[in-house]
This record gives sequence, structure tokens and C-alpha cells, in this order.
Amino acid sequence: MRKKSKYNVAIMGATGAVGEEMLKILEQRNFPVKRLVLLASARSVGKIYRFHGQDIPVQELKEDSFRDIDIVLASAGGLISKKFTPIAVKEGAVVIDNTSAYRTDPEVPLVIPEINPKDIKKHQGIIANPNCSTIIMLVPIYPIHKTHRIKRIIVSTYQAASGAGAKAMKELEDQTRDVLAGRPAKKEIFPHQIAFNLFSHNSAIKDEGYNEEEIKMVQETKKIFHSERIKVVPTSVRVPIFRAHSESITLELAKVPELQEIREVLANAPGVKIVDDREKNNFPMPLEASGQDDVLVGRIRLDISNPKGLCLFVAGDQLRKGAALNAIQIAEILIGRRDVVIANPEQNK
Amino acid sequence: MRKKSKYNVAIMGATGAVGEEMLKILEQRNFPVKRLVLLASARSVGKIYRFHGQDIPVQELKEDSFRDIDIVLASAGGLISKKFTPIAVKEGAVVIDNTSAYRTDPEVPLVIPEINPKDIKKHQGIIANPNCSTIIMLVPIYPIHKTHRIKRIIVSTYQAASGAGAKAMKELEDQTRDVLAGRPAKKEIFPHQIAFNLFSHNSAIKDEGYNEEEIKMVQETKKIFHSERIKVVPTSVRVPIFRAHSESITLELAKVPELQEIREVLANAPGVKIVDDREKNNFPMPLEASGQDDVLVGRIRLDISNPKGLCLFVAGDQLRKGAALNAIQIAEILIGRRDVVIANPEQNK
Repeated sequence: MRKKSKYNVAIMGATGAVGEEMLKILEQRNFPVKRLVLLASARSVGKIYRFHGQDIPVQELKEDSFRDIDIVLASAGGLISKKFTPIAVKEGAVVIDNTSAYRTDPEVPLVIPEINPKDIKKHQGIIANPNCSTIIMLVPIYPIHKTHRIKRIIVSTYQAASGAGAKAMKELEDQTRDVLAGRPAKKEIFPHQIAFNLFSHNSAIKDEGYNEEEIKMVQETKKIFHSERIKVVPTSVRVPIFRAHSESITLELAKVPELQEIREVLANAPGVKIVDDREKNNFPMPLEASGQDDVLVGRIRLDISNPKGLCLFVAGDQLRKGAALNAIQIAEILIGRRDVVIANPEQNK
Repeated sequence: MRKKSKYNVAIMGATGAVGEEMLKILEQRNFPVKRLVLLASARSVGKIYRFHGQDIPVQELKEDSFRDIDIVLASAGGLISKKFTPIAVKEGAVVIDNTSAYRTDPEVPLVIPEINPKDIKKHQGIIANPNCSTIIMLVPIYPIHKTHRIKRIIVSTYQAASGAGAKAMKELEDQTRDVLAGRPAKKEIFPHQIAFNLFSHNSAIKDEGYNEEEIKMVQETKKIFHSERIKVVPTSVRVPIFRAHSESITLELAKVPELQEIREVLANAPGVKIVDDREKNNFPMPLEASGQDDVLVGRIRLDISNPKGLCLFVAGDQLRKGAALNAIQIAEILIGRRDVVIANPEQNK
């Protein structure tokens, strides 16, 4: 991308849960924005957002929305990305796409800045932002992969409503009020009641009995780690939590881990914060992870069933590091702003 | 136990969440009760429960509470069991203890009726009821153990508030109301907010970084399966659900499983109900498991990371099969009432 002092940035899907988070993060991280364009469907036109003290009206997403845009942050759904991304790229923009539309495309880099930032250079107009569960899983375990080579990942997720968007978060709230008042819970977004309940992830089940969310975790891990060998067996579960995902992870490593070494590796890992107080029983919780940039990691312990095993429990903000923050970190690398890309690992020491 | 037409039964901890469930189940299953004695601490005296149309007042648990009692169903906490069980046994009663007080005692059988009913015969006055997470995990996988020998269990739990008692369930409700009203959540039972949050199980962390709940799952599995070889690596997590536990289970078997065979094994398993509709995305949920005797099992699929692996997702009512029902099933075997011990496996076919 041609170096400029400031860039024209468009958010596609600006009124969604991720879109709104993108706006906040652009402001918080002082991204060098010249002009900000907020794009959404016609029914959101009229909405106004504040950005660095200015009122920005939402515009309707159209084919001519991308004139003079340098960077598009896309989070309006896979079909919309498929339709508008080629148009934006043709207009000269780079699209950082938070949908699943291009993630498995071999021509499109799939990037977590803490792991494979160099892949960004290979882009041809599109860079894909990984699935939220993949990001939250891989950020803390990649440093362990570098020192101990991960052969197999067994992961069970505890995924928040936010992964299904702002309406799903509202459904959790509304259903909870209804249940507490003795009224039936209305189901609109999720196929099952989410209030005081949990269920297997609400994406379609594919071959071999794995759902789309789980398949993403398998495929994206291989692509981001540049390893066809690494094995992943995920179980994705939706829980009645608003906005951070948690994951119970059991790793099989190529060599026997030592706990102290693993702790040091994690303490120095970018984007990771250790929360592991055995005495106070304080470990990663979604409530604490919400609003934080770092992925919290704890329950760090050897696997008592396997000498080369390691167990972890992680929690990360699905809307921030799991989506909006990761996309903006990619944009920061793209414009050569390397200094602010990753959190300072010093804080863990 | 000497055969009688009806038995004098005492519930120790009758006003707790499990105690109240025991009362219900004794009535529902028409347990041959001659006299029912409800025992609790002094502050519960005055409470009255209905049982088969009669009012039964709660009595204070004292050393002389066990005269003429045949069967004690104990669920008043480990310290109280340690104090009163020897007294009850001396009086000639058999104590079925739902606390962790005697579970690891080599002299005390630890029993799940669907798995090791014969161990009941070895009792010397005390029979231990396993931990709820252990029961809900082992009921569905034992039939697979018989056909494919399980070598290793990797399990992550999604445990309801009920496991910490009636007050914890109330805390989930109260905190949820407070959070929805914008008030701070008051913490009394759990160390962390449970409303719209989850956390590593609130039992003390022991050696090697595993908490007491996880250690129970490891030790009790070995004892119930009569196998020192079987390996278990658990991660126990508390979720904002009222009363049923769910578990994500990955098994490593001694031989390569075939999905159709596993499905047949589970369809014929006592105490198990298959809920596994891939097309409708309908799998075990705690909301559906609540109030049911069977442990629901679904997400039945081969492990894509291991040819000898198998994955399952289960949900079971923590208060019923995870506690009260299992204890009463033990009592039924004890009195020779084998016909009603386990659910009819025909229903799964």
C-alpha cells in the first residue's frame, strides 16, 4: 500500500456489533484516518456515529461507495463481501474482510498479526480476518507451537452470543428477562433458547458431523500456522454470555513440556495476558476478558493423561481481538505502523 | 439388607437442592417407604414437606435420629456425613452417601447402577454416590468402554449452579436480575459473578493444578470402572445454567470405532437417550436434560484428529441422575427392586 500520512477508510457493515467496535478501535488507536465512510444497508441510513468529535452519517452501501477509499474494513456478512469486495478492490482499495468469504481462498492471506504478519505482503487486494474462535485459540498457543511444536489440539469452546451479532446479544437479554418473569422465551436469532441454556454451535453440520464453526477452526489453524500436519478436534458450544469467548484447550506437543518454561513462553507472548492464580482460584473469565485487547490464558497445567500434553483455559473478547481489533491490527501493518500492532509483552512479566 | 415390604427411610439434608429432589423421586418411583424422616439443621425445623399426600415435618439432625431407620440418603455435606454416618451405621442403617466423604475409601463401594451394581453387595453399611460430573460422564460412555475399551478421556464440563446447592441457584437468579437492572451483582456463594459469566470450577486447586472437582472425576472413574489404567484429563467449568451439567467428551479407544456401531451401543445403553439430529441441529442441551432421568448424548462423531478417537456431547440433570436419582437407584438395588432400577433402553431404538 502506498505510504500516506492519512487514509480514507470505509467500514462495511458499520452498524453491526463488529462494525461499531471497529469504529471505536480506529479512534482508540488513533488510526490515521483522513475520511471515514460508514456503509450499511439502506435501513440504517440516517444513523449517525461520533468519531473524533465529528458526526459521521451512515451511508447506503452501493457499488459506487468505494471511490478514493484506501482501506475497507468489511463485516457485513459473507454474501455482501462476495458482492462488494471485487468492486472495492477494482477501485484500488485493500479490503480486510472479517467474513468467511475469502478465508480458504489460497490467493488470500489469512492473518493474525501476532502469528503470520508477513503473509500480509502477499495480498492482492484482499486480506482475510480469521474466525473469532480461531484467533482466540491461536494467539496464546502459537508461542508454544514455536518452542514445542503442537501436533494436536483438542478444544471445546464456550462462545458468547456476540458471535452471532448485536441482535443475538439482544435476544440473550430479552429471553433472560422473559424467563425471569415467567414468560416464554422468544426465539428469533438462535434456533434454541439461549437464556440459562447452552447448545451446540448454531452453524450447519457438515460431513463427518462437524459444524461450520468447527471446520473453520480446523482449516484456518492449518493456513495460519502454515502446517497441513497440525490436527485439530473442536467442539463449538454457544453459552449464555454476552461478548467474550472462552476455550478449554488440551495440546499434544512434539516434546515433553516443563511448566516453568511454558509460563515464561506465555509471559513473553504478544497479545496474551496470564491470569492464573491457583490460590485465589482466579482464571480467565469472559466477563473480565470483555473490553480487553489481550487474550487471557490460565489453568496452565501439565496433562495428567499424557506426558507430552498441556492444558490451558483461555478467554478473549470476541468483538475485539476475535474480530475488529485483529482487522485493524492488519490495517496497521499494511500502512507500515508496526509500533502499535501488538500489545506490550512486558506487562506480563 | 433384610427383605421387608416397606422401609424406614431418612433423608439427611432434606431441605437442600438434592434432598428435596430425593423426596420427589422417592414418591415418583413409589419407593416402598414405611416411615420417612426428614433431617436437617435446627434452623430448618418447622418446614413441612408433602409426601404421598401426607405432611412431613423437618426434624433436627441429631445423634439419636437414626433409631429404626433402614436406609439413610445423605446429602448434607461431607463433614456432616463424616460425623453422622458412623452413628447411623451403628444403629443398623445402610447409608447411601451423596457427599465426597467416603468415595475414595477402599472399604466403601462407589456405585453407578448402570455400571457396577454388583459392588453394592460388598458394602459394610456405607455406599457412596459418585460426584455428579462423574455420573453424567460415565453413564453414556461405559457401554463404549465395554465394546471398545476406553484408554483416555479428555473432558471439558459446563456445570450448572445447582451443583453448589439451592443457594447457588438463587444467586444465579438474583445476580441476573441485578445485572439486567444495572445494579452490581452480589457474590455470596460463588467467588466470581455467575450471571452472564463462567469460571473455572470453584473448588480448591490441588497438586498439579487440578481442582477438587476434576480430581474426583479422575479418581472416581478408575474406581467405578475397576481400572487403574484408564486416563482422564478434565477441565471443570461453571456456567450460568440452573440445573443440568453438560460435558464435551473426546475418547481414545483401544480399537478403531465405527459410527454405526457406536450409535447402536448407545441406543441400547441403559439410562441414556440419544439426541443427535444433525439436520435440525438438535443436540443435548441442559434445558432439555433438566427434569429427565436419562443422560442425553449427541454430537456423536469420529475424532478427525485420531483414528481411534470418538467425540460426544452429553447433558444430564445434575440433581436427578447426577445425585438424587442415582442414590435412590442404589437403594432400589439394595432392597432387591431390580425391575425399576434403570430406564427402559427400548425407548432409544
